[in-house]
Amino acid sequence: MLSPEAHARILSIDGSAALEVPGVRAVLTADDLGVVGGSGRKAEPLARTEVVFAGQPVALVVADSEAAAEDGAELVFVEYEPLPAVVDLEQAILPGAALARIERSADEADVAMHGEAGAGEDDEGTERVSANVIDIVAYAEGDPEQTFAECAAVVEGRFRTSWIHQSYLEPQAAVAWPEGDGGVAVRSSTQATFWTRSDLARVYGLPIPKVRVEAATLGGGFGGKFGVIEPLVVGAALALSRPVRLVFTRSEDFVSASPGPGLVIDLKVGARADGTLAALEGRVLADSGAFSDSSPVGFAGGKLGGAYSFEAWSVRTYGVRTNRPGAGAYRAPLATPTAFAIESLVDELARRLDVDPIELRLRNVPAAGDLRVDGIAWQATGLRETLEAVREHPLWQRRDDLPENEGIGLASGLFPGGRMGASAVCRLDSDGGVTVVSGYVDMSGTDTGVAAIAAEIVGVPLDSVRVVSGDTSEAPQAGVSGGSMVTYCLGSAVALAAADAREQILRYAAQQLEVDQADLEIVDGSVRVVGAPQRELSVAAIGSRLTGFGTSYPPVQGHGTAVPPDLAPSAAAALVRIRVDRDTGRVELLDWVAAQDCGRALNPALVEGQMHGGAVQSIGYALYEELVYDEDGQPLNGSFLTYAIPRIDAVPEIQTLIVEVPAPYGPLGAKGIGESAIVPGAAAISNAIRSATGARLHELPMTPDRVWRSLRSPAP
Amino acid sequence: MLSPEAHARILSIDGSAALEVPGVRAVLTADDLGVVGGSGRKAEPLARTEVVFAGQPVALVVADSEAAAEDGAELVFVEYEPLPAVVDLEQAILPGAALARIERSADEADVAMHGEAGAGEDDEGTERVSANVIDIVAYAEGDPEQTFAECAAVVEGRFRTSWIHQSYLEPQAAVAWPEGDGGVAVRSSTQATFWTRSDLARVYGLPIPKVRVEAATLGGGFGGKFGVIEPLVVGAALALSRPVRLVFTRSEDFVSASPGPGLVIDLKVGARADGTLAALEGRVLADSGAFSDSSPVGFAGGKLGGAYSFEAWSVRTYGVRTNRPGAGAYRAPLATPTAFAIESLVDELARRLDVDPIELRLRNVPAAGDLRVDGIAWQATGLRETLEAVREHPLWQRRDDLPENEGIGLASGLFPGGRMGASAVCRLDSDGGVTVVSGYVDMSGTDTGVAAIAAEIVGVPLDSVRVVSGDTSEAPQAGVSGGSMVTYCLGSAVALAAADAREQILRYAAQQLEVDQADLEIVDGSVRVVGAPQRELSVAAIGSRLTGFGTSYPPVQGHGTAVPPDLAPSAAAALVRIRVDRDTGRVELLDWVAAQDCGRALNPALVEGQMHGGAVQSIGYALYEELVYDEDGQPLNGSFLTYAIPRIDAVPEIQTLIVEVPAPYGPLGAKGIGESAIVPGAAAISNAIRSATGARLHELPMTPDRVWRSLRSPAP
Repeated sequence: MLSPEAHARILSIDGSAALEVPGVRAVLTADDLGVVGGSGRKAEPLARTEVVFAGQPVALVVADSEAAAEDGAELVFVEYEPLPAVVDLEQAILPGAALARIERSADEADVAMHGEAGAGEDDEGTERVSANVIDIVAYAEGDPEQTFAECAAVVEGRFRTSWIHQSYLEPQAAVAWPEGDGGVAVRSSTQATFWTRSDLARVYGLPIPKVRVEAATLGGGFGGKFGVIEPLVVGAALALSRPVRLVFTRSEDFVSASPGPGLVIDLKVGARADGTLAALEGRVLADSGAFSDSSPVGFAGGKLGGAYSFEAWSVRTYGVRTNRPGAGAYRAPLATPTAFAIESLVDELARRLDVDPIELRLRNVPAAGDLRVDGIAWQATGLRETLEAVREHPLWQRRDDLPENEGIGLASGLFPGGRMGASAVCRLDSDGGVTVVSGYVDMSGTDTGVAAIAAEIVGVPLDSVRVVSGDTSEAPQAGVSGGSMVTYCLGSAVALAAADAREQILRYAAQQLEVDQADLEIVDGSVRVVGAPQRELSVAAIGSRLTGFGTSYPPVQGHGTAVPPDLAPSAAAALVRIRVDRDTGRVELLDWVAAQDCGRALNPALVEGQMHGGAVQSIGYALYEELVYDEDGQPLNGSFLTYAIPRIDAVPEIQTLIVEVPAPYGPLGAKGIGESAIVPGAAAISNAIRSATGARLHELPMTPDRVWRSLRSPAP
Repeated sequence: MLSPEAHARILSIDGSAALEVPGVRAVLTADDLGVVGGSGRKAEPLARTEVVFAGQPVALVVADSEAAAEDGAELVFVEYEPLPAVVDLEQAILPGAALARIERSADEADVAMHGEAGAGEDDEGTERVSANVIDIVAYAEGDPEQTFAECAAVVEGRFRTSWIHQSYLEPQAAVAWPEGDGGVAVRSSTQATFWTRSDLARVYGLPIPKVRVEAATLGGGFGGKFGVIEPLVVGAALALSRPVRLVFTRSEDFVSASPGPGLVIDLKVGARADGTLAALEGRVLADSGAFSDSSPVGFAGGKLGGAYSFEAWSVRTYGVRTNRPGAGAYRAPLATPTAFAIESLVDELARRLDVDPIELRLRNVPAAGDLRVDGIAWQATGLRETLEAVREHPLWQRRDDLPENEGIGLASGLFPGGRMGASAVCRLDSDGGVTVVSGYVDMSGTDTGVAAIAAEIVGVPLDSVRVVSGDTSEAPQAGVSGGSMVTYCLGSAVALAAADAREQILRYAAQQLEVDQADLEIVDGSVRVVGAPQRELSVAAIGSRLTGFGTSYPPVQGHGTAVPPDLAPSAAAALVRIRVDRDTGRVELLDWVAAQDCGRALNPALVEGQMHGGAVQSIGYALYEELVYDEDGQPLNGSFLTYAIPRIDAVPEIQTLIVEVPAPYGPLGAKGIGESAIVPGAAAISNAIRSATGARLHELPMTPDRVWRSLRSPAP
């Protein structure tokens, strides 16, 4: 059962009446779960003495049926002593503000002490802040003040973006059961089995081999499925020594998972007369929600520079604790809201300088080695080719020839993606099929790209390749299915494993066909002598022979481990045509062109799927989606009746332009493409509104009332 | 439900009354299972129109509870038309004998036509036989008649051995469930997941990837757990599209599994005056039971020569169909009963020639390259060292100084074992633990030997190694857990995988410690600079670093595939002291010395366990165990009340002499040891009875009544 209070002390929990309900097996509270370690939300699957957000799990009612569990939960009586809820970011950071959490953990001491030293700014010019600030990250380079002074145009603005829910198709779910001697297994909707294993081992003090994590194939996770539900279910299974299943209802998932956080961004950007972006200054208040772990808010500042490089900059991000759920990652974490800010301002700069917006962006494509504002060097990317592809699109040519109230907007983005080590096995089966085994979770169809890599490299038809995601007890070591890493990192390991398997196949065939291995090729699943294709040995026959009794040759099992030596950012651009209804503020999407550099499209249908999905989610971010909390921290929308994601009638036809600039280290040139697809859409819509109406929006989502009000304010 | 008839036509099956029982979901007959392929027993999980042994499954009653299923089975009415049961081997092969199976499959035509051509011998001197003979295997070399004529001593005899049940601790069990799109998964007591997968795919016409097989850890299988139960359960799960579980009761397992077959052996052996074994002639009637697949009976003749090589031989084996269950493998298939014959005759030859029995055996230790009677060359073995170890044992010195009715007997044996391809993965986990993944089933503790190999080669403590047996969807390709292959074949792959993992660990540590890789060693789980042990990096730290986010180094995942280039026979000898009660014929075991060449004892406790277990099972073979069928083919003993395995009070203290002659291709010198341990015991007991009483036994088991009767017959 979930807390109805956003912030309160728990005075007592009485489960005795619930235990009388037929079928109810147990009422578990925090004291019943044997948490011994971990940090943040994972170490607090149930609230202990203080609830810190409305929707926080307070007790688990375990029963033989859902109905009995629901009946039982109605009879668990929790006595709360309400405390002030912290909701507004700007209020929350003021010295002396009410605190979103009274009980502190030891590892928070530093920032808190610093923050509580006093009001105003300290000797170094640092803002004094309250103990709700749990994280301060600053980046600076050069002399921004001086550089701004040299600029031909400087624009600035305050942008606000919303809390947003990942709205994956399947709410989070998990079943856990005791296994082996004191161990536990869990099958869940996790995006990362090995991470979940480590987390659970830490939280419940179990040796790593005593925790086994299996993943279900995921339609989507979008960053939201990293260990929210598993500690609850595993704790219950361990406490009760029996299998326990927990499936979030949609409403539970809305109020108690780990949605993407809201930001308040103050951003100022200056450009030289030739359009060169020169200076950037930014301050971000990033809502951490109630927990301090696994939140990406500290990195918001690093994204402020968008797809550009500057001469001088100063950026400061405050991670602010509030009485909302713990902030999680959402597809291209924080890149969509920060792109909303920077791409809006770049659009304004193009107007001020009277430079074509694409031309301005092309002049500022970062070269490999140019620094991001977080000080990390950019890699070579396909951003230029992506922008050029958009420039040639007929829609862009029409931009000055539009009816009244229509506008065309453009924005671009780069998402660096991540990299993690990956291992893979490529096994030839007795039927000639190729099985690729990894520990990555198959999410949004990632397995199909992996299969394409193996098929092409081994030289067998795609439909003879199957990809298996193993559990943590036996799978090759894996990173997370997220961060645009599956194709890029796992794919690299699979490419090596497939090449290894191919080599083993050829070596055996060379011996059997009595030819030099160099004279062999694999065509359509058969090893042939080059120039004498009638001399052949099918891969299926090899698989059958090498898995039988008495073979003198080992089975074919290729193997690869890899970490790509550098990141491979994917560039994306969105070009949109919209119409604004000036009476209602409603924005109608008329055309959408999504261009994206995917390195190489291993599975074009899936690449287009990612581009479509990213575009649609950016439409949600732009126009519809917001988790709304009232001033007491009460969530006001917890279902799809009240939380608006784009419906099909709100989505225009999306034209996709796949741009292929091979990633130097990517498997067959491929790169991770999942994240950048979402980045530019919201900014593009905003720029189109500006183009159509002259109004500059500063807040996401750009709902009709906000648009309507902007139409009555002057453009910056 | 099982057939009460040994041989009958099924006229009708009426399950309507059973379906009225509350909880009964279905009554399935052969027509309901979608069998489309396969051969032998696997292709006939339920009898179709003809039952061929008493205990054959005829129908499956599927119910919500065991009780309901039992109640339902009582109400399934099957109408049978009884047919003559074929039980006696010598009768069965006579031309014109009643047939054990009326319906023939196409692939049996050849032998049958040959057999039915007429009585007596054909032009080539071949015995004319009935169509119950489904398999004839002959081996010959040189001129046995001439060689016998040159011999100083020739002995011969007819030996009969019993049908014997593997009597594993856990009866066979399986649960199957539909999985994925048209696929099926089964978790069972199989010894060979990949074989079972292939069998099920063939029987039910499924693509290989649509069948997933998981194995439970087995206490023992001893050759009996190869696909008897899985086709039943999978067929039901597919027919009903729901999970189905089947657990054999002990009685069901006794009457309807795949026990080891009985043999009738005519054997004649001749030796030259110096003790050199020169000539052998043999004829074996091997009971195939009712099915023709997977029966090892054809190979009985190849084992007749025991641990020796001859100058000339002629051996002929007849596989004979009877109305008994299909013959299966039993630990060192057919080696124990054939050793009973050859080691009895060698003992007699030693007497005739007045040569010390160990000396005679030492003179005949085959050299590498000498031929077995099946024409395959012997490898170098540890047989000589094993016999020498026994010769030095104090018990052997006492052999001429025994009270009346006591005797000391010796026998030896060699079991070649098998070899199959194996793959393994050796993964370094985030906690520094080493996980070895294979597709072999962990049986009788085989995983502990595998763990020892990995621990020693990587250089980490044994308790940080865990061994995981994966299912067929994701495990490295594997052979069967049987044929003394796990340690020898899987161990070879694990040795390579562990060396690969070690290399990866050292490479990373060299980079981190900034030293040459050649200057590093791994001691107690830590990589150290040789000569500067304070410069170290723990394997645990490496595991943790290489599995995290942003690592620039791939995770450690070693890999190995292997087939040992030759077999590695394990030699065994048994030396026993017994006392015979002349009034009752009861044999009391007083001392037991088991010597065995294990190549290298990776886990001495487990090696001793194998030696103990083999010795005890040989005691059962020698003195107690026999599946008895009456003349109508009815099993007379189907429980441990009536089927006698040795109880603890029948087992003397077993002294073990572990002999270590490294296997050239074995991992760390190890070889497979599971099978030879059982081989010599029965012959040793027989030789001890001869020594104590002068009586030569010719039939297993040597029950008190048989011993008592032998005491009244002259020795040969």
